[in-house]
Amino acid sequence: MTTTDATRTDLPAAGEDLATTMARLGRQAVAAAAVLARADAATKNAAIVAAARALRARAAGVLAANAEDLAAARARGLAPALLDRLALDAGRVEGIARGLDEIALLPDPVGTVIAEWTRPNGLRFQRVRVPLGVIGIVYESRPNVTADAGALCLKSGNAVILRGGSESVRSSRAIHACLVAGLVEAGLPVDCIQLVPTTDREAVRHLLAEMGDYVDVVVPRGGRSLVERVQKEARVPVIGHLDGNCHVYVDRAADLAMALDIVLNAKLRRTGVCGAAETLLVDRGCAATHLKPLLGALLDAGCEVRGDAECRAADPRVREATEADWATEYLDAIIAARVVDGVDEAIAHIARWGSAHTESIVTADPAAAERFLSNVDSAIVLHNASTQFADGGEFGMGAEIGISTDRFHARGPVGVEQLTSYKYVVRGSGQVRPK
Amino acid sequence: MTTTDATRTDLPAAGEDLATTMARLGRQAVAAAAVLARADAATKNAAIVAAARALRARAAGVLAANAEDLAAARARGLAPALLDRLALDAGRVEGIARGLDEIALLPDPVGTVIAEWTRPNGLRFQRVRVPLGVIGIVYESRPNVTADAGALCLKSGNAVILRGGSESVRSSRAIHACLVAGLVEAGLPVDCIQLVPTTDREAVRHLLAEMGDYVDVVVPRGGRSLVERVQKEARVPVIGHLDGNCHVYVDRAADLAMALDIVLNAKLRRTGVCGAAETLLVDRGCAATHLKPLLGALLDAGCEVRGDAECRAADPRVREATEADWATEYLDAIIAARVVDGVDEAIAHIARWGSAHTESIVTADPAAAERFLSNVDSAIVLHNASTQFADGGEFGMGAEIGISTDRFHARGPVGVEQLTSYKYVVRGSGQVRPK
Repeated sequence: MTTTDATRTDLPAAGEDLATTMARLGRQAVAAAAVLARADAATKNAAIVAAARALRARAAGVLAANAEDLAAARARGLAPALLDRLALDAGRVEGIARGLDEIALLPDPVGTVIAEWTRPNGLRFQRVRVPLGVIGIVYESRPNVTADAGALCLKSGNAVILRGGSESVRSSRAIHACLVAGLVEAGLPVDCIQLVPTTDREAVRHLLAEMGDYVDVVVPRGGRSLVERVQKEARVPVIGHLDGNCHVYVDRAADLAMALDIVLNAKLRRTGVCGAAETLLVDRGCAATHLKPLLGALLDAGCEVRGDAECRAADPRVREATEADWATEYLDAIIAARVVDGVDEAIAHIARWGSAHTESIVTADPAAAERFLSNVDSAIVLHNASTQFADGGEFGMGAEIGISTDRFHARGPVGVEQLTSYKYVVRGSGQVRPK
Repeated sequence: MTTTDATRTDLPAAGEDLATTMARLGRQAVAAAAVLARADAATKNAAIVAAARALRARAAGVLAANAEDLAAARARGLAPALLDRLALDAGRVEGIARGLDEIALLPDPVGTVIAEWTRPNGLRFQRVRVPLGVIGIVYESRPNVTADAGALCLKSGNAVILRGGSESVRSSRAIHACLVAGLVEAGLPVDCIQLVPTTDREAVRHLLAEMGDYVDVVVPRGGRSLVERVQKEARVPVIGHLDGNCHVYVDRAADLAMALDIVLNAKLRRTGVCGAAETLLVDRGCAATHLKPLLGALLDAGCEVRGDAECRAADPRVREATEADWATEYLDAIIAARVVDGVDEAIAHIARWGSAHTESIVTADPAAAERFLSNVDSAIVLHNASTQFADGGEFGMGAEIGISTDRFHARGPVGVEQLTSYKYVVRGSGQVRPK
């Protein structure tokens, strides 16, 4: 990897202090972004595919770096769940490489004409997608994010400054070197994808608060505490991804079999994803017939249920829910459950306790469905489908950097299209504006 | 106006401190926004038209309030230009009312389906426009902004908290009372449009930094110092409008007559608008034939020209330009001028000195035009047209709150569409996500 690293300019120069290093990374990113914004799709895709190739060729080196990270993390007593997120094996490395190949296959959003129209005076208007510019990504110790985020930003024509968790620093550097190799092979500036070279937490503060002249937007990718820190400290725009406290509402007009399929899938297919259901709301109008089977199926599948009095009456295995349960994103085989008086009380419960991420209604009543879909103010609202479809790939948008719970700029899955801005191109034939 | 004001809840309660008042305004705005988000176009338009009617009916009261503002401002020695912005007369009040009527006629963006598609599994996806939520508007002492901004936010389904300049406080209150009368007549919550009831500058800091739980975005409307203060202090997303240091580049392949029309219009039609040209760039390839006529026409029209040596050689009336001139938004009958070596040097000059607002190329050469349009990174780039078309109305977008020079969320004219977010509505028939 030496030859590649020799081309890297994101490493600190001898005796350079943090502020100087970060400002230099910022200037380099801006310069790279100007070149990248004009790169065609073929060149960007070539870099991404070459990075995937390099990753496969260097898998052994990546795994060796990851083993060092894991050893150090174990020595520091990192929690098992975090160790698992940090750990790579041959299969996971191949998965990361395949993810890069898939990003290369996505359509290039840059240059797409979003809208065009002509005015009576003959002026022809086009709204055209352009990159955002320079994106900062702050993430936890998940080595795969280095590749995903780096490639998504490259594909969307943005230079990126990556800052991963300190426990994964060796793995991230090894993966980043593969991305750089891809840039070199495609003839793109190596500064298109830079990795903050220090684990100093102060570097994160710099990226968030001191680099407004260079960074157009910061995307935190991680748990609530990371996102909240970024939103609190950031002096640049942020695309935030807060927790997914997702709800499934089973309406009185719900088909029981469909409700069972959707509730079990929404909660248990994967419990650790942000689209996993965390609260089940059952309409009193069907509680007599639907509540016991729904709770029983969850419990029989090994899911803990924390419910209100009616749920506990329906199945003695249900534990008592406290207010905290309505607000909790378990990310585990636990679900909160309560009975509500119809769609309006369901909408009110979601407004009070939800995180505006993803909610689903199960019903055969079109009026109830439309009322729910239009009145639930979440990034994603579904009718008769599992909340676990909350994923850019399932939307047909391809890989994404997360599900935005912001209302500003991007909401829902943040894919390559959401990492762009636009400009107006106006073509005339000598028009001047009348007095 | 008493009956209307009696319905207002944005006035401080007896003995209520600033923080309490601002937090209450925030809570009231959130509650109003939830109702407003579901209001249909007819109701919102009825409120706007009724506000225009109230404004016409109460013109005398508005003018009396404005006279008090003017007297106080004169006593404090406010600059003539600022006094003019503050001053209302019967014609200006009618202009504000007509502006409201025009906003009522705009299409309602809320509920618009931006995109829809179906996935192989049968899930039907729609991306639907929704309001942003609660918008804070901070503006200078321009009474008309109270009406424009209030109505644009209402039309786009957003509750708004308005904070105008202290010199215009009486005028703004009188105009705001008319907006409230419109809300009451249409049966919408009066808190849809609230006016910060104090001129205490600390209230602005609260709006920018302390109200993240209530305010989704802040829009500063005013000069550079205001926008910079807002961008510096804001802890919520900002749609910024920095200065318009706009350029016209006259290429070697430009028709001289067209270039004369466009340059004179771009600079002099109105010198105080953000789309006014501030720098003229002339290609050395046509300087021999085009430079003298262009400079002469500007000078003969009473425009001061500050140019480089070649411009001064072309016309002795041209004064010497300093570096500062390339960076200055004159908003006056002054233009900077220099000769450049073709389209690439023009692009480089704009990248170095421009504010990414609006730039125009005059040329009969399609290749030069496309190179300029694709490589100049400004919100608006024009070919063979005046920069003074940089206006939402001229774009066919209707009234706007300003021209965004940000890349994030909204770029260029910020009209009702740019004051919205979106959500995903997904309709299924029992789909669950495979393992």
